[in-house]
Amino acid sequence: MAEIKITVKAGDSAPFRNLTDYCVGTGRLDLALHKEYQDQLRAVQEACHFRYIRGHGLFSDQMGIYQEFTTPDGVKNQWYCFTYLDRVMDAYLENGLEPFLELGFMPEKLAASEQTLFYWKAHTVPPKDMQAWRDLVQATLRHLSERYGKERVETWPCEIWNEPNLPGFWEHADKGKYLELYRATVSAVKEALPQMRVGGPAICGGMGSQQWIADFLAFCKKESLPVDFVTRHAYMGQTPEHKGRYLYHTMNKPDDLIAEMQESRDIIDSFPEYKGIPLYITEFNTSYNPFCPIHDTNLNAATCAALLARLGDVADGYSYWTFGDVFEEQGIPTRPFHGGFGMMANGLIPKPTLWAFSFFSGLIGECVYRDEHAVITRRTDGGYDAVVWTLGEEAELSLTLPMKADAAVLMDLVDEESCNPLRCWHRMGEPAHLTAEQLRFLRAAGQPRQAVLESESTQEGISVRLKLKKNALARLRILPVQRTEDPGYDYSYYCED
Amino acid sequence: MAEIKITVKAGDSAPFRNLTDYCVGTGRLDLALHKEYQDQLRAVQEACHFRYIRGHGLFSDQMGIYQEFTTPDGVKNQWYCFTYLDRVMDAYLENGLEPFLELGFMPEKLAASEQTLFYWKAHTVPPKDMQAWRDLVQATLRHLSERYGKERVETWPCEIWNEPNLPGFWEHADKGKYLELYRATVSAVKEALPQMRVGGPAICGGMGSQQWIADFLAFCKKESLPVDFVTRHAYMGQTPEHKGRYLYHTMNKPDDLIAEMQESRDIIDSFPEYKGIPLYITEFNTSYNPFCPIHDTNLNAATCAALLARLGDVADGYSYWTFGDVFEEQGIPTRPFHGGFGMMANGLIPKPTLWAFSFFSGLIGECVYRDEHAVITRRTDGGYDAVVWTLGEEAELSLTLPMKADAAVLMDLVDEESCNPLRCWHRMGEPAHLTAEQLRFLRAAGQPRQAVLESESTQEGISVRLKLKKNALARLRILPVQRTEDPGYDYSYYCED
Amino acid sequence: MAEIKITVKAGDSAPFRNLTDYCVGTGRLDLALHKEYQDQLRAVQEACHFRYIRGHGLFSDQMGIYQEFTTPDGVKNQWYCFTYLDRVMDAYLENGLEPFLELGFMPEKLAASEQTLFYWKAHTVPPKDMQAWRDLVQATLRHLSERYGKERVETWPCEIWNEPNLPGFWEHADKGKYLELYRATVSAVKEALPQMRVGGPAICGGMGSQQWIADFLAFCKKESLPVDFVTRHAYMGQTPEHKGRYLYHTMNKPDDLIAEMQESRDIIDSFPEYKGIPLYITEFNTSYNPFCPIHDTNLNAATCAALLARLGDVADGYSYWTFGDVFEEQGIPTRPFHGGFGMMANGLIPKPTLWAFSFFSGLIGECVYRDEHAVITRRTDGGYDAVVWTLGEEAELSLTLPMKADAAVLMDLVDEESCNPLRCWHRMGEPAHLTAEQLRFLRAAGQPRQAVLESESTQEGISVRLKLKKNALARLRILPVQRTEDPGYDYSYYCED
Amino acid sequence: MAEIKITVKAGDSAPFRNLTDYCVGTGRLDLALHKEYQDQLRAVQEACHFRYIRGHGLFSDQMGIYQEFTTPDGVKNQWYCFTYLDRVMDAYLENGLEPFLELGFMPEKLAASEQTLFYWKAHTVPPKDMQAWRDLVQATLRHLSERYGKERVETWPCEIWNEPNLPGFWEHADKGKYLELYRATVSAVKEALPQMRVGGPAICGGMGSQQWIADFLAFCKKESLPVDFVTRHAYMGQTPEHKGRYLYHTMNKPDDLIAEMQESRDIIDSFPEYKGIPLYITEFNTSYNPFCPIHDTNLNAATCAALLARLGDVADGYSYWTFGDVFEEQGIPTRPFHGGFGMMANGLIPKPTLWAFSFFSGLIGECVYRDEHAVITRRTDGGYDAVVWTLGEEAELSLTLPMKADAAVLMDLVDEESCNPLRCWHRMGEPAHLTAEQLRFLRAAGQPRQAVLESESTQEGISVRLKLKKNALARLRILPVQRTEDPGYDYSYYCED
Repeated sequence: MAEIKITVKAGDSAPFRNLTDYCVGTGRLDLALHKEYQDQLRAVQEACHFRYIRGHGLFSDQMGIYQEFTTPDGVKNQWYCFTYLDRVMDAYLENGLEPFLELGFMPEKLAASEQTLFYWKAHTVPPKDMQAWRDLVQATLRHLSERYGKERVETWPCEIWNEPNLPGFWEHADKGKYLELYRATVSAVKEALPQMRVGGPAICGGMGSQQWIADFLAFCKKESLPVDFVTRHAYMGQTPEHKGRYLYHTMNKPDDLIAEMQESRDIIDSFPEYKGIPLYITEFNTSYNPFCPIHDTNLNAATCAALLARLGDVADGYSYWTFGDVFEEQGIPTRPFHGGFGMMANGLIPKPTLWAFSFFSGLIGECVYRDEHAVITRRTDGGYDAVVWTLGEEAELSLTLPMKADAAVLMDLVDEESCNPLRCWHRMGEPAHLTAEQLRFLRAAGQPRQAVLESESTQEGISVRLKLKKNALARLRILPVQRTEDPGYDYSYYCED
Repeated sequence: MAEIKITVKAGDSAPFRNLTDYCVGTGRLDLALHKEYQDQLRAVQEACHFRYIRGHGLFSDQMGIYQEFTTPDGVKNQWYCFTYLDRVMDAYLENGLEPFLELGFMPEKLAASEQTLFYWKAHTVPPKDMQAWRDLVQATLRHLSERYGKERVETWPCEIWNEPNLPGFWEHADKGKYLELYRATVSAVKEALPQMRVGGPAICGGMGSQQWIADFLAFCKKESLPVDFVTRHAYMGQTPEHKGRYLYHTMNKPDDLIAEMQESRDIIDSFPEYKGIPLYITEFNTSYNPFCPIHDTNLNAATCAALLARLGDVADGYSYWTFGDVFEEQGIPTRPFHGGFGMMANGLIPKPTLWAFSFFSGLIGECVYRDEHAVITRRTDGGYDAVVWTLGEEAELSLTLPMKADAAVLMDLVDEESCNPLRCWHRMGEPAHLTAEQLRFLRAAGQPRQAVLESESTQEGISVRLKLKKNALARLRILPVQRTEDPGYDYSYYCED
Repeated sequence: MAEIKITVKAGDSAPFRNLTDYCVGTGRLDLALHKEYQDQLRAVQEACHFRYIRGHGLFSDQMGIYQEFTTPDGVKNQWYCFTYLDRVMDAYLENGLEPFLELGFMPEKLAASEQTLFYWKAHTVPPKDMQAWRDLVQATLRHLSERYGKERVETWPCEIWNEPNLPGFWEHADKGKYLELYRATVSAVKEALPQMRVGGPAICGGMGSQQWIADFLAFCKKESLPVDFVTRHAYMGQTPEHKGRYLYHTMNKPDDLIAEMQESRDIIDSFPEYKGIPLYITEFNTSYNPFCPIHDTNLNAATCAALLARLGDVADGYSYWTFGDVFEEQGIPTRPFHGGFGMMANGLIPKPTLWAFSFFSGLIGECVYRDEHAVITRRTDGGYDAVVWTLGEEAELSLTLPMKADAAVLMDLVDEESCNPLRCWHRMGEPAHLTAEQLRFLRAAGQPRQAVLESESTQEGISVRLKLKKNALARLRILPVQRTEDPGYDYSYYCED
Repeated sequence: MAEIKITVKAGDSAPFRNLTDYCVGTGRLDLALHKEYQDQLRAVQEACHFRYIRGHGLFSDQMGIYQEFTTPDGVKNQWYCFTYLDRVMDAYLENGLEPFLELGFMPEKLAASEQTLFYWKAHTVPPKDMQAWRDLVQATLRHLSERYGKERVETWPCEIWNEPNLPGFWEHADKGKYLELYRATVSAVKEALPQMRVGGPAICGGMGSQQWIADFLAFCKKESLPVDFVTRHAYMGQTPEHKGRYLYHTMNKPDDLIAEMQESRDIIDSFPEYKGIPLYITEFNTSYNPFCPIHDTNLNAATCAALLARLGDVADGYSYWTFGDVFEEQGIPTRPFHGGFGMMANGLIPKPTLWAFSFFSGLIGECVYRDEHAVITRRTDGGYDAVVWTLGEEAELSLTLPMKADAAVLMDLVDEESCNPLRCWHRMGEPAHLTAEQLRFLRAAGQPRQAVLESESTQEGISVRLKLKKNALARLRILPVQRTEDPGYDYSYYCED
């Protein structure tokens, strides 16, 4: 059992850049038409209040934007259908989200070749007609500007393509073709909306990723292309082991991931022209696979806590991939728990990871303490908000805060015993189809457990002790107490304190 | 630590008459106009699904039914205003409830004297004009029949007055005057709605209660008056101790309460004319005082469980007093927890007692086991529903059920650690006015905790072991499991079982 | 101006078989996953209360039921994914609907050839492996039985394929292959669910439709196959004229449609084995094209009224194609009004046709009058419900009903001036994308207009006169009045009567 | 038939100070606990978006703030209960409203004498102990500051008492005693919340009202008391005629009311110390009686329109008395229409007057035209918003606006034929208790009717003609049209333009 001893003194402060609420990921954009998707999104937003959302497939055929028809006299015309785009964007805005635009993939009729990726057949190839692609991009941005206002739309970040350093996502992972795409697209965007910020290269880790960043920036520098920010992804999965449709792997450490990001940061800053421009991690998670069971665990939640404490040190925004489990890349999920990326399982069941994001998004005051188990911020009411976690071991926490007054310690606890819907489902026999009774139970089982802890007043302030299980995550809100009098009221007559 | 060892064998059955959902109590009827009241009622009904609701003050001035006006030439006319009555009844029906009518109290303008009771000044005296009272009763019943249909309204039980054996509720506790009131009223009701069932004398315990029942029935027999059912109340509080506006007392045992009810039952059955007519306990609770802190405790929940297991042995219906804390008899509550009768505290915070009623109302199958710690019923899907509780002591439960298949044991747990909003509030410093943050926390803290327990297959069936804290209440749903295959899915890769 | 003079006498009755609420159509079943779809469905159900819903694509790839995977050692396995099926069925049941199952189309991996239909590429060909198809049908029915209960699922009618007499819907419109499919499928269904009712051949009009019915029944008779009902479609469109993606045509008369259905009825009854089995019109509408602007008009509503008055004479159920405009057969709609089949336009704008179905679904009493302009039924409260309409001409209605008491005539009016969102949208400039302000306006513009008409008491009863515009539709509720007294209240002091 | 000819030229502007949304009135504050009240409030706020709400009875016993209890040793203690106050304020804030505080009436236990007013017995007398009153005021303000934040609470205007120039509202209409109350109270408020703005004397018209204002200001000047604003009321009713519980009277003209307010304005400005301080009309309406049938009429709506066009000329805020019909001053309403003050009838039925406030609250651009029939403002999209009305006569409106482009004229019409729920109810037989069917009908009948008018392009701009019935009220939104192309779409194939 580890001991975590934290003592905060008056005047303490600690570096902590909290960008938890910056962005969240989603699968194919048109899935946002689904009611289950919107229900999950609403629930996640109530807990986390993300500001941006980023997903694939804006230009894929399921969104139906790019259309062609042939006139009676044989002329082929292109036109654009924004019915679903409007419906998706309206849903995001209603949920307090703005899009972090990802321009891709290719409409079938514009695709230069037949390569597709995923169950849903994303066309992951260059356009056969670059001007038609540019027209599509511009028409879409202009439509958005008309509907939502130019000033608003210009604030939406715009990223070009997704993971072109993977041959599945971009034919042959052809770097030269990607740079051509970037050149053509960034100019199209800036013509339509000069103030819109544009970036790339949206690469995944490994696969020569750091070199891709260097080459991307060198190309842009040479061609004098705007680069408003650099984007990349960050996953922790090592060599995978496949079983059936599922994938398992051991994970890198948070230290590894942070170091990888720092290397990208350093590459960017090595270009005087681009020094200091934002680095956005437009996807991050433990495993990169949507059928990896880790995503449903308390271990995942604790790992996310460890990352959220540090990602702001190396990046200017980051986006968990993904908020929910309405997702189809490797096929339709057949069971409520299947290792999907989401913070919620299908059926509106919260996973432990949801609470990591929820608790961190609530850390809005000045930071007074940060280490590998805790982040603590100061509240405006004289109290403190803390998030504490354990990764892979039990621990005994001792926390002292410089409060003079009486204090109440409100705890929301997420651990393998208190808030573990996956285990409940497993013990139910892993049912593929939940009855209404099972579903209600699992939704409740995914809620944190509440308690108000006993604390004692010491010379150093308020002190509280707490045993944490392995992979536990707790939010502590330490609130100053002003006792109200109520003559004759005696709690202890029927209860122990 | 007590040991509770329960073994159910195939074919076992046990007597258990579950009338948990029969009826619930409420304060003054016009409080049903309040939004907070209706919000609490909706939440309680989602959990408990009561069928009837019974409250005071149908004819009190706050409901505004009885009105008088004087014409320009000095004639005094009476008329009736059903605006609020309709609104209240509509709210009940929308929430799946029908009224258990209690005819009382007296409109001020009909009151024979000035005695009032309560903060809200109920006129607890006979009418100064019995015919005007009869007219009021009949006009009200006729209006209800027109609006809701005669057939429906005739199914509503109708009780005459409330606790006339207390001088506060009925001037001088004048038995003769009550019998007169009964005689005049029962005939008025039967004239208006011949099929409506009417009863009394709605007495509280002590205060000569058993004699009141005997005298009431003797009078009705002598006068050949209809008595469709007998009503009385059941509380457990002993000699009270007052502190400020609060009241404390030790409680009788469930055995005492059951014995008191059995005595009433026996008195009824001693009249050949009335033998076997229903006995309804139109109010029951631990303490009879709305500022007694016991009502907010886990002890109260466990006590209610013990009562709900047995009340059907002695009565044909019973009604917990009351569902919620929108209540004004001794004044407006000033703090969310104040010992109010309700199953929910103001602010929509569930109290432990809510779950006693909720769990018992779900016991709908055939009973296979009942003792002083548990009731178990058989499900249609081959599983079992159990409610178990401990009263004042810890216990180790061992439960064996005759199931051959694999089983999942879903537990909803309510104990002093897991589901104790009162303690959380106490440790917060007993705030009179909750911030939104505190309120959300306490609502969550009032939810049961979920877990799926490990069970083992033995020769006798499925066996599960569970440690219960003092005053714990748990619902166990033991469901047969049909495992679905999903090749490659491996829960244990990242988790312990 | 036509004159419509209706006089109902006490004791009058008229034949009228009202099956308005029997069934309604929908496009591809997986569109039911969409929020907009469910919102429209809820709104339609509030107005119309349909009992069944029938749509295409149960086995198409968008529903994702049929799946294959290849094991590491190269064996191809089939399995079934019911995630979306459950979600769709849950949505229907929550909205008070049960499915009228249509078994089709072919999963791509089971398709015998490459023919597809529609923007969304329905595979409209026989299975390459009939046993795999039978397995798919049985697995699906067994899953539904497990989830929703065998007794319930067996009540759902089951139709085999859709419009096989059209080569687009069934390769080469190959009758022999259809009969084979029927034979294999009906036996698969009956094996899985012996009580389930099965029928076909689901043909559209023209295209040898009557002969198809005759041949279908002859084949089934010869092969001793069960046929629990016969299904066919009924549209009114004549030779079409195409402009762009839109289609226009003049319409047959209701008389023509009724005669066509009667011919089918007579063919069925000419088989002694099948005489009297139900004929279900599993699709009907004016035009059969989802981009025919007639669907959005008041003319369409009046035409539907004329049909709803008579369809029960020739069929045992009928299903308007379709309830809403979330529909993709010829592509995604680009504008709110585009001639879609739906009773509601996208954006939740009611079309006039919705009210035809709503008004007719409310005609639940005994019919006292029916002609080509009106259907009138008797209410239980002593009043009458009437639906009246004009088709292509103005009319002056004079209506006399045998009521002795005072009566109030509540009118809900839908005509080209009062309830015509299409015209409003047209006059707005036919915007493709509605602002929130425009959308709210159009939703309101799609509501009927209310008025209470003046009536006079005559010797024959209550008489009311009303001028109806062309293509008007009105519901009249003639309610007996019991005036309540309120001394001093004088409406006429400030108002004219 | 009057002719209203309006021609707006480019660059036109007109004075118009639109304070429609400043404030709205409500009966007794604790009625805000009622669900029906909150439902009406939500509906009114959706239509009108008021910023403040002002009502009576903050300190009346129904709010339960002032409490006393006697200790065992006979000492009388005062304390305060804010349970209902918090609930009421929370409800207002949730509906987007802040309170315009009115300090009154007297708690029974603080009342110097026994005078009461209204069915609900408001104690309308001075305090028997001025210090206890001051303590009550300060304790309440301090509690509000703690709960809602001092900065926020200090923005709430604070008015002292209500209509002290009426003996019913203030014993003997004793001016000297009112000035004493003001002196004691204003200092109490400023001690507690120095930035809070305080005013009086809250007088009604007639009853020496102008002299009251003069005397009030003279007194404050002499005593150097703060006066942050002056308040008074404005009603139009002349000599009343009583029938039963109803009251009827002819009305003054808008001119009369404006002149009366101007006189008050001039009195204020005659004091150099108070010149220019705000004059708030804290109540206005046609009749001052809650059982005057005019309030339910279209005439009332048109009168309100005429007032809303002009009140900003003479006052700095005004508050229609009242938003809804949950109101008890002269007793509980017995029928949905009874001449209550509200913009909505009980049962959530909109009255025509609601739309006057709704339409005016939407006039947010620069005013380009105002006369006794119309107010027109310029939209940011190049179009115009107009509200037009007729008072007591029919009119033919001709409106020309300087728009070059094509325009769509969206009309929402409220007149005696199109939107007249009162007449519908009257013709229904004036039912006291509405069936669900009647209620739904009346709610719909209270909605404006929508149409898009035909307009023509002339040299002077866009021109539209419209016949208005007597007491009509219309909102016209004249929107520039950008036609979208959709090749092949032909509205006119099935419809006339």
